[in-house]
Amino acid sequence: MKRKLLLVLTLFVLSFTLASAKANKALWKKLDKVKDKYEWVDLSLDVSPQTPHWHGFKDLKVKAIYTFETTGNTFLTYEYTLPGQYGTHTDFPAHFDPKGRTTDDYGPKELAYKLVVIDKSAEVAKNNDYVLTKQDILDFEKKYGKIPEGAFVAFRSDWSKRDIKTYENKDKKGQSHYPGWDLEALKFLVGERNVAAVGHETADTDSAVTGSTVGFIGEDYVLDSGKLNVELLKNLDKLPPVGGVVFVTFPKIKGGTGFTSRVFAVIPK
Amino acid sequence: MKRKLLLVLTLFVLSFTLASAKANKALWKKLDKVKDKYEWVDLSLDVSPQTPHWHGFKDLKVKAIYTFETTGNTFLTYEYTLPGQYGTHTDFPAHFDPKGRTTDDYGPKELAYKLVVIDKSAEVAKNNDYVLTKQDILDFEKKYGKIPEGAFVAFRSDWSKRDIKTYENKDKKGQSHYPGWDLEALKFLVGERNVAAVGHETADTDSAVTGSTVGFIGEDYVLDSGKLNVELLKNLDKLPPVGGVVFVTFPKIKGGTGFTSRVFAVIPK
Repeated sequence: MKRKLLLVLTLFVLSFTLASAKANKALWKKLDKVKDKYEWVDLSLDVSPQTPHWHGFKDLKVKAIYTFETTGNTFLTYEYTLPGQYGTHTDFPAHFDPKGRTTDDYGPKELAYKLVVIDKSAEVAKNNDYVLTKQDILDFEKKYGKIPEGAFVAFRSDWSKRDIKTYENKDKKGQSHYPGWDLEALKFLVGERNVAAVGHETADTDSAVTGSTVGFIGEDYVLDSGKLNVELLKNLDKLPPVGGVVFVTFPKIKGGTGFTSRVFAVIPK
Repeated sequence: MKRKLLLVLTLFVLSFTLASAKANKALWKKLDKVKDKYEWVDLSLDVSPQTPHWHGFKDLKVKAIYTFETTGNTFLTYEYTLPGQYGTHTDFPAHFDPKGRTTDDYGPKELAYKLVVIDKSAEVAKNNDYVLTKQDILDFEKKYGKIPEGAFVAFRSDWSKRDIKTYENKDKKGQSHYPGWDLEALKFLVGERNVAAVGHETADTDSAVTGSTVGFIGEDYVLDSGKLNVELLKNLDKLPPVGGVVFVTFPKIKGGTGFTSRVFAVIPK
């Protein structure tokens, strides 16, 4: 009788363990499905000495510190020297605000956002100084619905399709011409929609003309508001206006104000 | 009649557009759910000059190149100098194989894996030279099921709970003592299970004793097989043996053989 009870108990525990192990694998199935049914789009530039970056920074420095020759044919390791804001990168509030959050303050849940893409590439093609306005956002919302709280809002300008050497797009007087966000548009996104981040294909939040005449007022506003600014994105033309999810990932740099990021989107096929 | 037809057509197009916009927002709901119902665990060490790293590398160098003082109270940017394999990092095949894949060869879909965690922390506590064997894996599979193809298999040793200064754990003769993977275990995972990556809390795939007597045979095998090696992980004690999903993310370094990574898991609560 005792043995029978033991057998029943063992079977009960075993079936429970198996059921629990099975239940716990639900996320694996979800991953398979999301890899199969959705498209994954890289929004990050390759990182090399040729990568576009703000003119005030040096090119990435790459130095082989262990080579197959020096290690007896064992391994190869490079050493890299780069500014935090190199290539596709995230600016953290501390970049402009001495009291702002730093890179290591962002936990895993703050690496994934609902993605909204506002396409103003046609306007930018006609006018390189184009600024995305509050009215552009209101028009977008009329078509695609209200921008959700905590979203990542990207400005598609197709600037990343340009040759690297023409990102600055200087005129004869040395004035750069590239698009940016209008301050009122940013105030609407942050103040009225409470978005988490804005992203763009250029190296600045503000247009080149705004930056050189009024200053980095848009970037300053975004970062002082405790929001993120993601720059030098690419492939925004491959994204839907709404419904995508974007991952903004970066090494967990202690006290960092910005770092080269791997940004990628998962979108409906 | 013509106006009526136009009205019907307009309504049809409008309802289709709205339905399509609604359908396209399904991923947003999924994101909300995954953030709400699952736990997100950071598996990455903070990156600073104090971060544990392989003894053959220098500490991270951090230099302020633009400060609030030098920019008229505008912004703060640091410049970083680091070896590719610094702190929590991914080793790519090219680290050991001149013909192997480099950092930039990995597209977004290769940044997310099914996560398997084999806990040998009790054994490592008793014997710091412990190597995880093929038998350990077979025992694990008996309990939790077959390791799926393309999985990321992590060896939990609790080594990351140690004080940074004792990661090397040297004896009086200068010999380090830390755990690692047995070569036969790796051959089983790669050859019989076709996993995508292995991960561990130490700075080496091989145990310290194996590394200093036989060489980096395990790491060499993994990378020569075209698989990834992810090192200096933390928080493996917070993960379930099966059912989690792990993201292994890094900047898209052109021709890179390794880079500091942001590694995080999504697991059932």
